[in-house]
Amino acid sequence: MATSDVSIAKELRAALDGPWREVREEARAAIDDDRLYGDPSLDIKAARARVLEQMHLVASYGWVERGFRHVDGRPADPGAAVTALEMLAYNDLSLWVKSGVQWGLFGGAVENLGTDRHRGYIDELASLRLLGCFAMTETGHGSDVANLETTATYDPATQEFVVHSPTPSSRKDYIGGAAEHARMAAVFAQLITGGEGRGVHCFLVPIRDEAGSDLPGVTISDCGLKGGLPGVDNGRILFDQVRIPRENLLNRYADVAPDGTYSSEIENPSRRFFTTLGTLVRGRVSVGGAAAAAARVALSIAVRYAEQRRQFSDPDTGEETLLLDYRSHQRRLLPLVARSYALAFAQNELVRRMHLVQTGQDTDPRAQRALENRAAGLKVAQTRHATGAIQECREACGGAGYLTENRLVTLKADTDVFTTFEGDNVVLTQLVAKDLLTAYAEEVRDLDALGWVRFAATTARDVVRERSGVRQMIQRLRDRGDETVDEGDLSRRSVQLQLFADREDYMVRTAAHRLRARAKETGPFEAFNNAQDHILAAGTAHIERMVLEAFIDGIADIADPEARALANTVCDLYVYWTIEQNQAWFIMHRFMSVERAKAVRRGVNELVDRLRPQALTLIEGLGVPEGMLRAAMLD
Amino acid sequence: MATSDVSIAKELRAALDGPWREVREEARAAIDDDRLYGDPSLDIKAARARVLEQMHLVASYGWVERGFRHVDGRPADPGAAVTALEMLAYNDLSLWVKSGVQWGLFGGAVENLGTDRHRGYIDELASLRLLGCFAMTETGHGSDVANLETTATYDPATQEFVVHSPTPSSRKDYIGGAAEHARMAAVFAQLITGGEGRGVHCFLVPIRDEAGSDLPGVTISDCGLKGGLPGVDNGRILFDQVRIPRENLLNRYADVAPDGTYSSEIENPSRRFFTTLGTLVRGRVSVGGAAAAAARVALSIAVRYAEQRRQFSDPDTGEETLLLDYRSHQRRLLPLVARSYALAFAQNELVRRMHLVQTGQDTDPRAQRALENRAAGLKVAQTRHATGAIQECREACGGAGYLTENRLVTLKADTDVFTTFEGDNVVLTQLVAKDLLTAYAEEVRDLDALGWVRFAATTARDVVRERSGVRQMIQRLRDRGDETVDEGDLSRRSVQLQLFADREDYMVRTAAHRLRARAKETGPFEAFNNAQDHILAAGTAHIERMVLEAFIDGIADIADPEARALANTVCDLYVYWTIEQNQAWFIMHRFMSVERAKAVRRGVNELVDRLRPQALTLIEGLGVPEGMLRAAMLD
Repeated sequence: MATSDVSIAKELRAALDGPWREVREEARAAIDDDRLYGDPSLDIKAARARVLEQMHLVASYGWVERGFRHVDGRPADPGAAVTALEMLAYNDLSLWVKSGVQWGLFGGAVENLGTDRHRGYIDELASLRLLGCFAMTETGHGSDVANLETTATYDPATQEFVVHSPTPSSRKDYIGGAAEHARMAAVFAQLITGGEGRGVHCFLVPIRDEAGSDLPGVTISDCGLKGGLPGVDNGRILFDQVRIPRENLLNRYADVAPDGTYSSEIENPSRRFFTTLGTLVRGRVSVGGAAAAAARVALSIAVRYAEQRRQFSDPDTGEETLLLDYRSHQRRLLPLVARSYALAFAQNELVRRMHLVQTGQDTDPRAQRALENRAAGLKVAQTRHATGAIQECREACGGAGYLTENRLVTLKADTDVFTTFEGDNVVLTQLVAKDLLTAYAEEVRDLDALGWVRFAATTARDVVRERSGVRQMIQRLRDRGDETVDEGDLSRRSVQLQLFADREDYMVRTAAHRLRARAKETGPFEAFNNAQDHILAAGTAHIERMVLEAFIDGIADIADPEARALANTVCDLYVYWTIEQNQAWFIMHRFMSVERAKAVRRGVNELVDRLRPQALTLIEGLGVPEGMLRAAMLD
Repeated sequence: MATSDVSIAKELRAALDGPWREVREEARAAIDDDRLYGDPSLDIKAARARVLEQMHLVASYGWVERGFRHVDGRPADPGAAVTALEMLAYNDLSLWVKSGVQWGLFGGAVENLGTDRHRGYIDELASLRLLGCFAMTETGHGSDVANLETTATYDPATQEFVVHSPTPSSRKDYIGGAAEHARMAAVFAQLITGGEGRGVHCFLVPIRDEAGSDLPGVTISDCGLKGGLPGVDNGRILFDQVRIPRENLLNRYADVAPDGTYSSEIENPSRRFFTTLGTLVRGRVSVGGAAAAAARVALSIAVRYAEQRRQFSDPDTGEETLLLDYRSHQRRLLPLVARSYALAFAQNELVRRMHLVQTGQDTDPRAQRALENRAAGLKVAQTRHATGAIQECREACGGAGYLTENRLVTLKADTDVFTTFEGDNVVLTQLVAKDLLTAYAEEVRDLDALGWVRFAATTARDVVRERSGVRQMIQRLRDRGDETVDEGDLSRRSVQLQLFADREDYMVRTAAHRLRARAKETGPFEAFNNAQDHILAAGTAHIERMVLEAFIDGIADIADPEARALANTVCDLYVYWTIEQNQAWFIMHRFMSVERAKAVRRGVNELVDRLRPQALTLIEGLGVPEGMLRAAMLD
């Protein structure tokens, strides 16, 4: 059996651990604990109880507090908080989701949308004395949050808001924590005062009493069994004229005076809405991180299995062949390992930027919006990767892969909804593309879901805005490269990055052109709809370029030459494989000759061949401790 | 909301119902029964008990007996038996698998490998008085059945076989029915007599007494929870010198005389082995059929949901837009519907051929082998389609798709192992390619798993054997076509089929060439391994050509002109989409210009656009009764 190169693996792991590597190391020591794993034999009642118990253990680690400003004024450390909690995805995704709901979503709403008058809740929720949930999605509206139907109508007579579900489709749905444990909900509802609608705001609404019974006017039901995540108690909430104090409006960005006068420092209602949502970016960042972690666990299991499982004799030697010695198996797993590396670096960069914005260290006014765009794109890339990679790992382990004791099916079932929650991947890809197509124009932010199409279709702008970043990077890579090498040599990083950037630019330009050309004939919706696959492809191309940049930056930080060389080969595989998957586009749009496309295909084969002896080193570099894999077949 | 055209849907349904449409109609009436659905809230103990109870209900329908020769000599009706049981996949896949194990695999082994002395078991197992299992796979060997390790050593002193598991890896594993219910196992083991190994044979081995306890020498354990199929009791069996009577050898193709003399009408041991396995083809046929059925259920649910769910306002009208009116949603679902049509026709053709071979109506000596090849290829196509389509349906239904009450996650979890069992899809695709690469040479059949590579690499043959069938079909289509139309017009069926056939031929020829060129340098295994992705692609191209032929044949049988026209549009979508997915290959190998490839992409968009108003008609044509969908969100 092959062995790993321990020192190289250690260097790679340190690189992938990123800016908060001490936090990760500390977490690894804490979470390698039997009590933190799920027990698939439990029914949902018992599974939910177990997760709640595990959360108390997690609360004792001191990680949670890092996510909140201290009472004494010390700032929060969001990068550390997100990183530490992400590590729980190595244990059990129900635990990770439920923790994310309590501390990330519910806690995040109080922290970021509340003001001093709500500070008292932070201690309560951090320590789990107050269990909460995040009641945004409704049965009728998930992606289209601006059109939620729940109302919160101010009554100046009693200085209360009346929270109400006016229609069956306004029922809050899929709400994690609602079915059993939450006592309070952060409810997103249309604020109405003085007879005027003011758009979606967030309110703290008590939903259960100390004994766990629904409070008057509140009707909670259980979503029951799901595809996975049995330890998360998803539920539905209906409000029938539920009265809450005026102070329960989370009033960071808008407030209602006792007499019902509405005020906000943000004039434009749409901008106010997006500012509100923008503060919740941590949720998307976290989902991407957890998806990435789950994919790393699955790949670690499948590659290790392929290093021990043999099938069919090699007629030349008479010995049975290891699965990982088959080309088809290398091609199944190693490019996915390469993409896990790429995405890990991209995730680190995302968390770093989030931390800078949220701690006020990055004060560029465009930074928040760029962060949201990056978080949306990477959430898509990570969850799509996890869904595909875990599926491939299951199949690559055959019948053994189907047994729960080998974990892959649980990883698959638990992560399956990640492509949906915190923003459906199709909708998020469109969001990314929208910013590209409208050149990040300020006014677009304030338009409704498809209003941007009208803008994009009627306003002539240079949609490929100046990308000083990518240009500088390409120049830097060129300067560093060997000048005697052919300018078009695809093994050069600058050429690779240029190709990714060119593809993105071309797609964005032509999509914008198409929108404009068609909008006159058909109206914006038809124009948008006819170009939708094109628009989505532009969004995806943008995400892939962004990930490659992060990979290149990440490699530059690796000091050890051997580890850096290996990471460079992994990066080549990521690039070649991504090109191979899109080679039809590159050829059809004359960015690549047929001969070069064939060379790319051969290149993938050569690269998996070259990386195959290092497979275990790469897996150890992914940073999931072997003892935490807990797949019976690896014992 | 759109409506369906009832009369067209009825015509399409009749066409897809195929040669045994009366059997399907009869089954539809029987199985729309609450008692036949799974209950996801049950633990595995209760789920297993429920399935066993359901099987007694199924046994009362009289379908099972059709799979066996009658005592009075009337022949079996395998086409009807396979078709009727397939319909249970609309209800619950645990029920379908467990039924398949009992009647298809265990019963099939007794029926096809046994002789008159085993006839008494048939009645017992058909009526469920005898519960059995099919113990082929071992922990160490699944795909490589020829190298199973379990031994059955003949002892002339007592006229018994001694069944034994000599190593930990020889343990029978994943055996459906073994963990709780089976009293007897059809055990595949290396027959040893007179000190000589005779290869893998099948033996009937009692494993449990009436009280359900392991018999002496038999140690059974439970595989426990799996990704899905909770109602199937998969288990592991270890044999410690278990003695069974000589008569328990299923002796259709080989026998051992009381004194230990071995005899067989098939001289060549390898050919004997393949003849044995070949009789079990019904298993692969059935898995493909059930996968197809599950995909039809999922697509029926997702398309109906997309016809009622709205999200985001159309800025032109102010109304919220149906999901199915989005181009991206049409592109997600409608090509999958088209492929379900294609595969349904191909499955009908497969079952028809199986029926002819197994009832002795097709006596062409090549028919059995062609049937096995077709069954392997279609099993791959159907299970790959089901895995992808059900996943897409889940995601296309968002959060609602993740709730068990909407069935998609259960369909996903239950079918996930279909790509693995009855032959791993990668191994089966290789099997298909192997026959193509060696031009179905008789001698190849007798070579071990990779021995064929040496053959293919060293023997010069015209690997693209005469395909009179496809040539005739292309000519017939041409004759029927409008002669004024451009010969290269891709909307013509003959041009489409030619393109699929050309791709297959080219891939097969070049793969063979590559094997030959490389084998001299590297030896057969390396040559095979370096070409493995190419070989697999050739197998896939063959399968796609075969499916298209069946689709064309199936359409020709539709009498109603409107239904036929619609089916033709669906066929176009299947063709265009398949080409689009492979367009890089077509361009790179000069089978298609860049301009034509772009036209294909536009063609897919135009076709989904044209089919969109007929979506419900197409779904009803798929033949899953609306009342059987049982997805809460459609209520």
